[in-house]
Amino acid sequence: MEKDTLTIIKIGGNVIDNSETLSTFLKNFSQYKGLKILVHGGGKAATRLAGKLGVETIMIEGKRITNEEMLDVAIMTYAGLCNKKIVAQLQNFNIQAIGLTGADGNSILSKKREHTTINYGYVGDVVEVNAKWIQAIIDTGTTPVFCALTHDKKGQLLNTNADTIAQSLAVGLSSIYNINLIYCFEKKGVLQNMEDEDSIIEELNYNTYQYLKNENIIHSGMIPKLDNCFKALKQGVKNIIIANPDIIINPLMLHTHISL
Amino acid sequence: MEKDTLTIIKIGGNVIDNSETLSTFLKNFSQYKGLKILVHGGGKAATRLAGKLGVETIMIEGKRITNEEMLDVAIMTYAGLCNKKIVAQLQNFNIQAIGLTGADGNSILSKKREHTTINYGYVGDVVEVNAKWIQAIIDTGTTPVFCALTHDKKGQLLNTNADTIAQSLAVGLSSIYNINLIYCFEKKGVLQNMEDEDSIIEELNYNTYQYLKNENIIHSGMIPKLDNCFKALKQGVKNIIIANPDIIINPLMLHTHISL
Repeated sequence: MEKDTLTIIKIGGNVIDNSETLSTFLKNFSQYKGLKILVHGGGKAATRLAGKLGVETIMIEGKRITNEEMLDVAIMTYAGLCNKKIVAQLQNFNIQAIGLTGADGNSILSKKREHTTINYGYVGDVVEVNAKWIQAIIDTGTTPVFCALTHDKKGQLLNTNADTIAQSLAVGLSSIYNINLIYCFEKKGVLQNMEDEDSIIEELNYNTYQYLKNENIIHSGMIPKLDNCFKALKQGVKNIIIANPDIIINPLMLHTHISL
Repeated sequence: MEKDTLTIIKIGGNVIDNSETLSTFLKNFSQYKGLKILVHGGGKAATRLAGKLGVETIMIEGKRITNEEMLDVAIMTYAGLCNKKIVAQLQNFNIQAIGLTGADGNSILSKKREHTTINYGYVGDVVEVNAKWIQAIIDTGTTPVFCALTHDKKGQLLNTNADTIAQSLAVGLSSIYNINLIYCFEKKGVLQNMEDEDSIIEELNYNTYQYLKNENIIHSGMIPKLDNCFKALKQGVKNIIIANPDIIINPLMLHTHISL
């Protein structure tokens, strides 16, 4: 039997942090045809709440540490404020949305990151996606909205990067669906020249990526992001796109399409 | 066809506010046989967070007002901290739990309370329960955990009393299920004498209730609670029990059974 197509769309701070941008995006998302899942990060809400509560952001070797207080802040903002406000807005746009963490329905099981040199605290690395349960929820006509939290099935919620959640869902659900994964981005795609917003690399395959990485044309923050994309493609995800959020109403706009 | 039995259990501050009591309750809840829904209030978490954030609790004529800041506090604590920690713990006890507000799946539609003499702010009175969707979720083998938030389907989340949520779910789902509604309480039931913790009224029907109310034996806070119970029974709920949380592992313990 032909698999259904499911589109997973990940949005980050550039969409979440501005209520007008978010509202426009959610309206566009509601008009996007076919089965879909939304994944969102927390944007600046967690940092803002932590500031108000006097919870210090602890950084070790450039990495943010999630202690117990910071985890509570993440739970309150990601699963509470951001997630439920998105769900309420999508309902207004007639999308039968449901807000989820990885604990809900045991949908995303993770494992607390082990101490190596740095103790990251309550940070989870994804172990397994409960594809059957997510499919059962989708089959009720419901659109899942995931925030950046998972759990260890031992009662502990864990902070997990939203890009990783989107990628894990994409891989985990690829046995059931043809998966399109769209990373919404502040730029229109991966740039060839950081100074030129329109220098979009329209097609990026694995060989080109290796070349551009060696030439230092693609560097820093884009590398883990793209490494994850190629890993997901190798694990069965069909299409990955990095694009501006407007791509979902204008599929002809410039964007980066990633393939093996 | 014979209806399935569904038990709706509502817990409040006396369970939520103590992590050990909560953990014991959730373990007992996980062992409670049959289809079930958990409804929880926020306990003191919202008041505590509001205090830390300097959000003032505004009272008008003895009624708490939910302004925008206080609603955000409610969303963060009810839908975030309380709800998701309960879900994660239930998953540990092998319950396939999911945390919900009334916005999720448009499960509980409400209407912002209209100004009469008091503007209550973002408080919602329940209009409709989406019984078919909740049934579809339960049919996936999932146990819903509702917090005290609803929405107006126009993008606005609204604060709604947890007792009312439990009662609305009970009435709304009574067309599909035989509903048992259990209000967990700090006492073992409705008392005949406030000074005597064991003076439980074991059977309370409508006529007895009227008599005890007239005699001022039942008074103050119990009256709206019991009025709501009788309303629910008239609207099709089969059994209502007011009891100590331990009732769910010890059905023989003293409790108040309410009937028409």
